[in-house]
Amino acid sequence: MKATVYHGAHDVRLETVPDPSIVEPTDAIVRITRAAICGSDLWFYRGVTKWEPGERTGHEFVGVVESVGRDVRTVAPSDHVIAPFVSSDGTCEFCHAGLQTSCVHMTNWGDDANGGQAEAVRVPYADGTLVKMSAGMSEDGSMLSSALALCDVMGTGHHGVVTAKSAPGGTVVVIGDGAVGLCAVLSAAKVVGAERVIAIGHNEARLSLAREFGATHTFNSHGDVKDEILELTKGGAPSVVEAVGNQESMELGLALARPGGTMSFVGVPHNVTSLPMRPLFVKNVSLHGALAPTRAYIEPLMQRVLDRTIDPSRVFDLALPLERVAEGYAAMDERRAIKVVLDTGVR
Amino acid sequence: MKATVYHGAHDVRLETVPDPSIVEPTDAIVRITRAAICGSDLWFYRGVTKWEPGERTGHEFVGVVESVGRDVRTVAPSDHVIAPFVSSDGTCEFCHAGLQTSCVHMTNWGDDANGGQAEAVRVPYADGTLVKMSAGMSEDGSMLSSALALCDVMGTGHHGVVTAKSAPGGTVVVIGDGAVGLCAVLSAAKVVGAERVIAIGHNEARLSLAREFGATHTFNSHGDVKDEILELTKGGAPSVVEAVGNQESMELGLALARPGGTMSFVGVPHNVTSLPMRPLFVKNVSLHGALAPTRAYIEPLMQRVLDRTIDPSRVFDLALPLERVAEGYAAMDERRAIKVVLDTGVR
Repeated sequence: MKATVYHGAHDVRLETVPDPSIVEPTDAIVRITRAAICGSDLWFYRGVTKWEPGERTGHEFVGVVESVGRDVRTVAPSDHVIAPFVSSDGTCEFCHAGLQTSCVHMTNWGDDANGGQAEAVRVPYADGTLVKMSAGMSEDGSMLSSALALCDVMGTGHHGVVTAKSAPGGTVVVIGDGAVGLCAVLSAAKVVGAERVIAIGHNEARLSLAREFGATHTFNSHGDVKDEILELTKGGAPSVVEAVGNQESMELGLALARPGGTMSFVGVPHNVTSLPMRPLFVKNVSLHGALAPTRAYIEPLMQRVLDRTIDPSRVFDLALPLERVAEGYAAMDERRAIKVVLDTGVR
Repeated sequence: MKATVYHGAHDVRLETVPDPSIVEPTDAIVRITRAAICGSDLWFYRGVTKWEPGERTGHEFVGVVESVGRDVRTVAPSDHVIAPFVSSDGTCEFCHAGLQTSCVHMTNWGDDANGGQAEAVRVPYADGTLVKMSAGMSEDGSMLSSALALCDVMGTGHHGVVTAKSAPGGTVVVIGDGAVGLCAVLSAAKVVGAERVIAIGHNEARLSLAREFGATHTFNSHGDVKDEILELTKGGAPSVVEAVGNQESMELGLALARPGGTMSFVGVPHNVTSLPMRPLFVKNVSLHGALAPTRAYIEPLMQRVLDRTIDPSRVFDLALPLERVAEGYAAMDERRAIKVVLDTGVR
C-alpha cells in the first residue's frame, strides 16, 4: 500500500510500504478513505519537532473496516468508521472519565510505522478507539469531510470550549483563526449556544468564515484588540479559548479573562517563555490544558453533523488526492490553505 | 495611636500616628484587639517587593467597632468583628459571586496609611468588609486567635482546597508547611472531608502539626517525594494545593496532578521562571490562581471554629505584644515562628 513517510524538514513522500496486518486480537485494519493534514503536522514538517527519517505521518482519518482481531466486538468488516487522533482502550479509568488522551494504553498514530496519511492503518484497541459512522454519513461527500473533522479539529475546538466552561447564553473569546479556532467558534455558537462569540484572528477570509460559523464579533489581531474587547465585555470574558499557542496569544488570553473565569489552551504552546502568573492569581483565573480527548466527542458531534447543526467540513479548503500529499503540506506551511483533505481513492 | 510603619528592609517600627477617622459614610473605625504577621509581609520586609518608607503594614486583624458612618447597617459600635485581608463593597458582581478580591471597590490595607498592625484602623465599605463575630468568640482567647486566622491563612488554605476541587472521600496533596499549607490540610481533612491528605514540607515540627490537622501522609521535601507520592496515589492526585510559590514547588505540583486534575496556587509565585506547560496540556490539568476571597469564607468557617471542627489558632506559635512587632517580623523571617499573633492591649 501507499503511505506518507517523513524524510526531513519540508520533505514528506508517498511511498510503497508493507500492508498492515492484525497483531493483537483487539486490532482492526482500516482502509482509509480520507485523511487530513493537521496544523500540528507542521511542527515536524518545519523541523521544529525532531523526527527521524522513515517515520510515518498522519493522525486524522476515516475509512472502512477491512478486518478485525478475534476480540473486537463493536466494529466489523465493511463498517465506515471515524478514528480519533490517538488510540485508547475504552476500559481504563481515564477512558471511562472521557479522558481518552490519558488512556493507560494510549498510542499515537505514527508509532510503529502506522500513520494515518496512507491507504490503510492498523488500529489498536479498535473497540475503544473507533466510532462507527451513522447511516448516510459515508455517502455524502460533505458529511464525510465533517466526519474527518471530528478526528481532531472539531473535537479539539469543542473541548476547548467545554473546558473553558462556556455556557449557553454566555460570552466566549476564541483566539486564533486556524481550523481549531474556527471549530471552537462553531462549537461555542452552535453546540453550546453561547450568546456572544468573539473571534480574534489575522486573516480576513478566515474571520469571515468565523462569522458564518456564528462569531458575533471578529477582531483582527493586528489592531489593539485587547482594550477593545475589554471595553466590549466590560472587563473580560468568563471563557477564553486560546488556539494559537505562542507567548503573545497566551498573554492576550489571560488579559481578556474575566475575574473568576477560565482559559483553555488547545495546543502545546511553543516559544512560551514565561507565563504571566500574576493575572492568573489576582483574577482567580483557571488555566486549563486541553489536549482534546476527541474520542469522547465523536458520537455527540456526529449527531450534530447529521442534523445539520454544524458543518465543520468547511475548514477543509483544499482537497487533493493522496498522491499529492507533499503539495498539501506545502500549501498549509505557506498558509495557502487552512486545512487539507486527502482523498486516498480507496473505497 | 500606635501603628507599625515600614522604614526599609528589615526595619519596621511601632510609631505614634494620627487616630483614624470616618471619611466616607460607608466607613467604620475599628479598635484592633489582635493582629497577625503574614508570610506575605516578608516580601517587603526582605526588600523583595519595593515599598516606600512610611507605608503602614498589616492586613490581618480582629477588633471592636468604635464608630460607623451614617450608611453602615450591618455592624455597630461595640460589635466584635473580623476583617478579611482586603476591603470590598459587598454589592458588586464579584462580591455577589463570592470573589471579593476582585471587588470593583477593593482596597488593600496599608493603602492610605491605614494598616492593620496597629491599635485602630479605618474600614472602607464596612458592610461589605466586616463580619460580626458570633457570641462567645471574643471572650475565648483560643477562639479569638482562630477568628484572626480567618482573616487570611485559614480562608486562603480553604480557598486553595476548594479551587483544587477537593471532594469528600478524595485525595489532596498540599505542598508547603507554612501557615497557609497547614490550614489547607485542616480544610481538606476537617471541612471538606477528603479521605487522603498528603502534606509535603521540610520542617518536622510543622509536619507533625499537619498530622494533628488531619494529614494522613506527610513527606519531607528533602527526600525524593515525587516518585513516592506518584506510587502512593497510583499516578497522581486529582487535587493539588501549591502553597510555596517557587519554581520547584510549581513543577512538583504539576508532576503530582492526576490527569484531569486541578492544581491551585494560593500565593503569588516568586522566581517562577518558566511554568512547565507540557504536563498541564498533556494531562488536561487545570491550574487555578487562587488569591483567596476570604470574606466569602469567614461566616461558614467561623461556625466550624465555634463547633470545634477546626482550631486554626494553632498556627500561631508566637504571641507578642504589639510593641514587639519588630521582634515578630524577625522571628518569622528567621523561620523561628510559623506565624505571630500581636496583642494590641486594646479591649
